[in-house]
Amino acid sequence: MEFPYEETLDRIRDLISANDTQALRVELEGLRVQDIARMLMTLEPPQQLVLFRQISDELRSEVFSHLDLSLQHELLQTLERSELQWVLSGMVPDDLTALLEHLPNEEVRALLRLLPMRALRNAMILLGYPEDSAGRLMTPQFVAVQPQWTISEALDHIRDQSERGETVNTVFVIDSSGVLLDALPLKRFILGRPAEQVDKLMQGDVLFIEVNESREAAVRQMQHYDLEVLPVVDDEKHLLGIVTVDDILDVMQEETTEDFHKMASVGNLNLSLREAKPTLLYQKRIGWLLTLVFVNIFSGLAIAHYEMAIESLVVLVFFLPLIIASGGNAGAQSSTLMVRALATGDVQAHDWLRLWGRELLVSIALGVTMGLAVSLIGLWRGGHEVALVVALAMICVVIVGSMIGMLLPLLLERLKFDPATASTPLITSIADISGILIYFAIAVAVLQLPMG
Amino acid sequence: MEFPYEETLDRIRDLISANDTQALRVELEGLRVQDIARMLMTLEPPQQLVLFRQISDELRSEVFSHLDLSLQHELLQTLERSELQWVLSGMVPDDLTALLEHLPNEEVRALLRLLPMRALRNAMILLGYPEDSAGRLMTPQFVAVQPQWTISEALDHIRDQSERGETVNTVFVIDSSGVLLDALPLKRFILGRPAEQVDKLMQGDVLFIEVNESREAAVRQMQHYDLEVLPVVDDEKHLLGIVTVDDILDVMQEETTEDFHKMASVGNLNLSLREAKPTLLYQKRIGWLLTLVFVNIFSGLAIAHYEMAIESLVVLVFFLPLIIASGGNAGAQSSTLMVRALATGDVQAHDWLRLWGRELLVSIALGVTMGLAVSLIGLWRGGHEVALVVALAMICVVIVGSMIGMLLPLLLERLKFDPATASTPLITSIADISGILIYFAIAVAVLQLPMG
Repeated sequence: MEFPYEETLDRIRDLISANDTQALRVELEGLRVQDIARMLMTLEPPQQLVLFRQISDELRSEVFSHLDLSLQHELLQTLERSELQWVLSGMVPDDLTALLEHLPNEEVRALLRLLPMRALRNAMILLGYPEDSAGRLMTPQFVAVQPQWTISEALDHIRDQSERGETVNTVFVIDSSGVLLDALPLKRFILGRPAEQVDKLMQGDVLFIEVNESREAAVRQMQHYDLEVLPVVDDEKHLLGIVTVDDILDVMQEETTEDFHKMASVGNLNLSLREAKPTLLYQKRIGWLLTLVFVNIFSGLAIAHYEMAIESLVVLVFFLPLIIASGGNAGAQSSTLMVRALATGDVQAHDWLRLWGRELLVSIALGVTMGLAVSLIGLWRGGHEVALVVALAMICVVIVGSMIGMLLPLLLERLKFDPATASTPLITSIADISGILIYFAIAVAVLQLPMG
Repeated sequence: MEFPYEETLDRIRDLISANDTQALRVELEGLRVQDIARMLMTLEPPQQLVLFRQISDELRSEVFSHLDLSLQHELLQTLERSELQWVLSGMVPDDLTALLEHLPNEEVRALLRLLPMRALRNAMILLGYPEDSAGRLMTPQFVAVQPQWTISEALDHIRDQSERGETVNTVFVIDSSGVLLDALPLKRFILGRPAEQVDKLMQGDVLFIEVNESREAAVRQMQHYDLEVLPVVDDEKHLLGIVTVDDILDVMQEETTEDFHKMASVGNLNLSLREAKPTLLYQKRIGWLLTLVFVNIFSGLAIAHYEMAIESLVVLVFFLPLIIASGGNAGAQSSTLMVRALATGDVQAHDWLRLWGRELLVSIALGVTMGLAVSLIGLWRGGHEVALVVALAMICVVIVGSMIGMLLPLLLERLKFDPATASTPLITSIADISGILIYFAIAVAVLQLPMG
């Protein structure tokens, strides 16, 4: 059932224009927080404020949590002090951390003053963990019981916590000092006999993550074991918080977007494209573009090296884009296959020898096919000698391009760099240089051309 | 807590070599199905079979479900009939569907004969839904109660179903004809008074998806609303099955990998890179490579058009790779930003005008910066007239490349094609052709060169 988003948005726009706050409230009552957030992000600033103020008190913080960073930021600067206080104190700890970690320090301090003591303490603790750690991702709200409790006592406790809005599909078992012992699905408590003790349900084989480990490690573990929740502990295994599967979905999306951008030599945008300012986009793109200009100077130098050969047989230039682009394209294919397979854990760096052998085989087959194709064009434009040159060059260029595309990500991974740094434009540029050198070297040798 | 994978694998390898099945069983008892599956995928074929046969009866089907397709396929052909029967009948319906849909028809028929009646019926129904539909993704195993039942009756039913291994964190409410009325978290049943009727808990505002809708739609909905489970219904809203969040994680990973491969002009691999055969890789790569050769002929023709200009001033060729690569790189950046933003729903096709205006601004700034950089190289290699030509050409080429990179994915999206078809190599090739034409046209005009 798709929610009739556009119609509802139109109705809401009309109600805002008519300033009919009564009807606006009624309209909002039937909506989910995610859809209200989406609408807010589409509206113009003055309308945004009108709509935001009509959201019911219970939902306002939750809607706010679903907004993107720039709108959150704008609202923080527009709302009155008392409104701010209400919104911030209603936010769950992990959403609050996600907001604060992206704001400048002085703003964070100003906002922290608005928080009640307990929320302030939570926020300070969570912000103390390293960026991109499991600790930053977790929420300290969970339900824990102790092994010596009876199931009926545990259920009373769960009921109590559940009314305060905690997630209870998984119930954690801790000892009296807070050390994590087990994680049990709620259904086990319903199945058990009320007088039985909790430790009768336990298996003691619980998965967890240390708070300073990376959020990628948390994602990997939850994905590998199909977990809906992952407990986060300190170095003495005290339970500190939990990471839930919806956090993981967000992280996965962010990480993948980052990889996509890296593959196209765009700096980490960390922000929606829709709301990115031109100056930010410029900054994120210019660095790599200039670097690649520098790399491409070597292509120019490679060509300059063969200037006399070109002058003596200018038809060679006709095939230049064709041949060097093919090396780049084959390289882009193999580097992307490799980068993605490394990112998903499908291949590991130590598989390189087997992968290399196969890639050599594949690229020879690709090169020969393409060499045959291009030799026909060679016959048409330059006769059989030129056809031979371009065919040979094509075979070598495709093989070399594929090898570079495959081995560079593996090398980066081995050296503990992000393999996605072997971006398509970088691979293409390196393949270009090799392509030019190979092509002209073969041409000079076969056609016995002069060299400068 | 990272599982000590490598050490365990080494121990298991030793036990297999020593043929110590007793110790192997003991070792396996402490392991999770996902880790056993991972080990099986690393071992050599004869070892795989030995290990697989030592997995306890209860876990064997689950481990099998976690294997990748090619190993499943191999095992299907190696195992004895009775073993197969056991493995297949233990698989949950959605895993079984995922297996069967990738096998050739005659094998499917042979395997279906091994299934018990109920599983056979389930499999036939699920396989009847369109490929890539929500129906293919769902499992028909869920817990449903009726609104007129008391909470205590409902809890008895939930206990009963739960013992049979169903997911019960969410309990569905259906009427007597099976129409979906609501989805309630299990904790509501624990909170409610036992004598109360289920309909007292209901809010009637349930999200669902129609069985023939795409699995992408299911992913989008679950992600947007942070759902852990999504009910799947027929066109009369009868509850048919559920999609769970772990299915969604898998689909997201698959779809993203597909997008990565498309961006590098690799056909849909639909398979792990590690296990892909050379012939398959060849097939998936050669098509686009040949297509791009064809596109690049136009680059050659563009160059041939300016052959006389090149002969009269061969230094122009020095800047050729630099300038055309820059257009391609800028284009790759903007197309990747756009394709990814469209894939995540961050931008929509109807935003094009605003996005276009901003991209124009950004690309002018990028072009001017790079034009200045390249004019210095121009001064060095060819004097101030050449510097002027390459600077002007660079500005135009970067702007045109960015525009192509931005608009082509949007155009494809509008025409209901996959925007990822505007792959980096394709954008680069198109930018190349435009770059060559722009560069030489400016050179001929400014330097008053002869034309052929």
